[in-house]
Amino acid sequence: MSEDSEPAASDSDESAAADDLTHTDDDGSVQMVDVGDKPDSERRAVAAGTIHLQPATVDAIRTDEIGKGDVLATARIGAIQAVKHTWETIPMCHQIPITNVDCEFSVGDDRIDLTVAVETTGKTGCEMEALEGVTTGLNVVWDMCKAVEKDDDGQYPDTGIEDVRVVEKIKRER
Amino acid sequence: MSEDSEPAASDSDESAAADDLTHTDDDGSVQMVDVGDKPDSERRAVAAGTIHLQPATVDAIRTDEIGKGDVLATARIGAIQAVKHTWETIPMCHQIPITNVDCEFSVGDDRIDLTVAVETTGKTGCEMEALEGVTTGLNVVWDMCKAVEKDDDGQYPDTGIEDVRVVEKIKRER
Amino acid sequence: MSEDSEPAASDSDESAAADDLTHTDDDGSVQMVDVGDKPDSERRAVAAGTIHLQPATVDAIRTDEIGKGDVLATARIGAIQAVKHTWETIPMCHQIPITNVDCEFSVGDDRIDLTVAVETTGKTGCEMEALEGVTTGLNVVWDMCKAVEKDDDGQYPDTGIEDVRVVEKIKRER
Amino acid sequence: MSEDSEPAASDSDESAAADDLTHTDDDGSVQMVDVGDKPDSERRAVAAGTIHLQPATVDAIRTDEIGKGDVLATARIGAIQAVKHTWETIPMCHQIPITNVDCEFSVGDDRIDLTVAVETTGKTGCEMEALEGVTTGLNVVWDMCKAVEKDDDGQYPDTGIEDVRVVEKIKRER
Amino acid sequence: MSEDSEPAASDSDESAAADDLTHTDDDGSVQMVDVGDKPDSERRAVAAGTIHLQPATVDAIRTDEIGKGDVLATARIGAIQAVKHTWETIPMCHQIPITNVDCEFSVGDDRIDLTVAVETTGKTGCEMEALEGVTTGLNVVWDMCKAVEKDDDGQYPDTGIEDVRVVEKIKRER
Amino acid sequence: MSEDSEPAASDSDESAAADDLTHTDDDGSVQMVDVGDKPDSERRAVAAGTIHLQPATVDAIRTDEIGKGDVLATARIGAIQAVKHTWETIPMCHQIPITNVDCEFSVGDDRIDLTVAVETTGKTGCEMEALEGVTTGLNVVWDMCKAVEKDDDGQYPDTGIEDVRVVEKIKRER
Repeated sequence: MSEDSEPAASDSDESAAADDLTHTDDDGSVQMVDVGDKPDSERRAVAAGTIHLQPATVDAIRTDEIGKGDVLATARIGAIQAVKHTWETIPMCHQIPITNVDCEFSVGDDRIDLTVAVETTGKTGCEMEALEGVTTGLNVVWDMCKAVEKDDDGQYPDTGIEDVRVVEKIKRER
Repeated sequence: MSEDSEPAASDSDESAAADDLTHTDDDGSVQMVDVGDKPDSERRAVAAGTIHLQPATVDAIRTDEIGKGDVLATARIGAIQAVKHTWETIPMCHQIPITNVDCEFSVGDDRIDLTVAVETTGKTGCEMEALEGVTTGLNVVWDMCKAVEKDDDGQYPDTGIEDVRVVEKIKRER
Repeated sequence: MSEDSEPAASDSDESAAADDLTHTDDDGSVQMVDVGDKPDSERRAVAAGTIHLQPATVDAIRTDEIGKGDVLATARIGAIQAVKHTWETIPMCHQIPITNVDCEFSVGDDRIDLTVAVETTGKTGCEMEALEGVTTGLNVVWDMCKAVEKDDDGQYPDTGIEDVRVVEKIKRER
Repeated sequence: MSEDSEPAASDSDESAAADDLTHTDDDGSVQMVDVGDKPDSERRAVAAGTIHLQPATVDAIRTDEIGKGDVLATARIGAIQAVKHTWETIPMCHQIPITNVDCEFSVGDDRIDLTVAVETTGKTGCEMEALEGVTTGLNVVWDMCKAVEKDDDGQYPDTGIEDVRVVEKIKRER
Repeated sequence: MSEDSEPAASDSDESAAADDLTHTDDDGSVQMVDVGDKPDSERRAVAAGTIHLQPATVDAIRTDEIGKGDVLATARIGAIQAVKHTWETIPMCHQIPITNVDCEFSVGDDRIDLTVAVETTGKTGCEMEALEGVTTGLNVVWDMCKAVEKDDDGQYPDTGIEDVRVVEKIKRER
Repeated sequence: MSEDSEPAASDSDESAAADDLTHTDDDGSVQMVDVGDKPDSERRAVAAGTIHLQPATVDAIRTDEIGKGDVLATARIGAIQAVKHTWETIPMCHQIPITNVDCEFSVGDDRIDLTVAVETTGKTGCEMEALEGVTTGLNVVWDMCKAVEKDDDGQYPDTGIEDVRVVEKIKRER
């Protein structure tokens, strides 16, 4: 699936009413969506988010004073692994064949933005995979920078994850 | 460890300089922190975050029209499982014995706030566990509400995760 | 695959003799069944089982005095996760794409019955997935009710899991 | 901990009322039990259960015509792994250090009994670990014997798991 | 896919240049290969390796004095499980549907050779799965024989894993 | 535990005879070693191994033409994760608290050597953890270099893992 594919198609087979019903049995209990009758489609979802850090921490990442750039390498691997594990992390998710994961970091003055694109050829969308990639990747950045982000009391007044959202969701019949 | 314990003590054995060095070998490569010489301590970390939803979605959660309240039950279980799996999700985390996890949801007009408190008696802090609990719990809310949050084009213009932060971190020598 | 599908078809491609041989190499050692030449089929398996509890415990589940109904919600999620993890829990199972899981609890006077239906479009049946869902779901009920089922000596004289069986197995060529 | 230890002591720190309360927050929602204040104890739990099979199948297991005895070897390994994974299979279980697992099979005419003993030095009991060992071990037996247990219609009229129970639970202060 | 299939075909769609590029984004950062446009193919990979042991240890394995042959049964199961888990063990691997795993041990005077064949119908090769099966299987042999291989100082002067290689890799369009 | 600790002490509580017996029940079946009576000790194990590659591949790793050095970063993370997962990869291993992992790569003309040191404070040694770190880390190197190591027929005539061994094993009573 090329990235310049047609405008986001309506994911009509997962419309609100239908999904809500299939997610719920007669007792209102949680259930997975039955995807048995859905065709395999080329699907792509892109999620993004931001972690705010102290400028000195971002500088240290840039100049490789924190693991010499390995902050982002570790976060990238953590994000990819999280994408692949979404079916067990999010209880009602199905296991779908991930065909591609693309992680991009953008380093600002006091922030790092992470965009994760996920592609699959399965029977259900992959926005949860992309979201799991983003939140886990940003958590890994936090973990790698804990030592320099902590203040004298061991707290994190300057650190925070913001603006986690789904940027794009596409489905194309094959 | 009671929740009304003393004010957050400085986590001095994980100070910025020391941690940064132990995280890094001579080649600047990623490493786990050596915690072999750290004593077992009572540790507690609390993280929080928010998911923004459409008011109609929050109403549906309140009135049990989406799984009759099971959105939060599922998110709670997803959050607790994420806390326990942090050692494999965050590559450089150690596996520590989690003694308690407490999840609290607060439902607003167009948002749900999730607070996750984690306690351990291990050799290293548990703020990453609390953060993983929050981000995964909020992702589960998103997954459970996908059908009603999506617009006609299958996009999520109103949905977003914000303000993920560490609220409190405490260490008490035993 | 609709539930009112045709009567259970003979699963002839997994007949006793053939399966037994492919499960065994020349030295009689354990092997996975080679499913490379099997077609993808719509398959459904239903398993069921019962946990016996004290009447007072079942009452407490009914009146939400134990977690206000969350016993069954937690068991349901535990069962669904167990279905998805069967490929790693049962050593010789293949990983197959689960398209649907349906859990139903029936609450009696001194017992809870759990029925788990699993559907897949894979190359091999899903009865082990259904059985794993049933036994894990019932174990979760046990775990949630431990405190009230235990006698004064910490033993469980009234608690037991019975009658775990495969209720139905269907295969339909696509 | 020797197996001939003193008679099962009352597990008083997990009495019904207390456990029920700690399992439940103010909203009646599911929570893990807080074990932070519990001492490390030597704990042992034994669970048992039975799988009913056709006499011809049991004969085949005895004479090594099904994998030459590997049915039980595979079930044994599956049971041990299930014991170690209980903290992720049963959502509200804690991860505790398993120090010993002992599996014993007893082969009858039309049945196999499995007894699993688990020992730990942790802050909470290990009966769920023993139960997970038993149900998973018996499910593995089922999986290994599927080919010969199935009738001509692919159903399992003679196969069933029965009498899963906790045989013994002991706690000894160190 | 029969084992006597045509001579190993060139895996041209994963040629060095192309693979190298898709593995690398603009910043030279690690990425999974995008397999979205690759057809499903029948693929087979065979890997092999050797563990050197003391002759007395190999004798004990042969005469069942160490677990009565269970060394190899345990190693076999460990190898099969490792094959199925490769997608999470090797960070950039995709999850592919494993259709067959075949493990063969050859017992020499002071060595055991293990050959693992893996077959899949997926979009990418399975040589990493075969390699993971071999190295894990040999590590399990080591674990099972630790007690008799260790010298009086607790060291392993005679134990070693050698000659781990890919013996064969085949792809056949369906 | 400092690295300059005393010479390797004999691991006498795991001597051949004792370990062999505890590993084996009356029927000669596989069992985990009972470590319930062992004291917590400071333990360290170091394993090493080598992957042979084409000189051009090693050059490409050195000059960052394959992922700009990320081959080793990815292998390092894969090795550390494998160390932490050894308790589930090697069926009879216990889960022990890993306090430190140290990975060192040495890049030769046509080879890369990997040394993995693991430290724990548990009841049993960590040589299997170190071995799993080495074999998985080397497998990750293989995976990252597949594209340039493969010949025109998709085979790996020049690639191989050799000389996997335990370099050092130390136990110190606390």
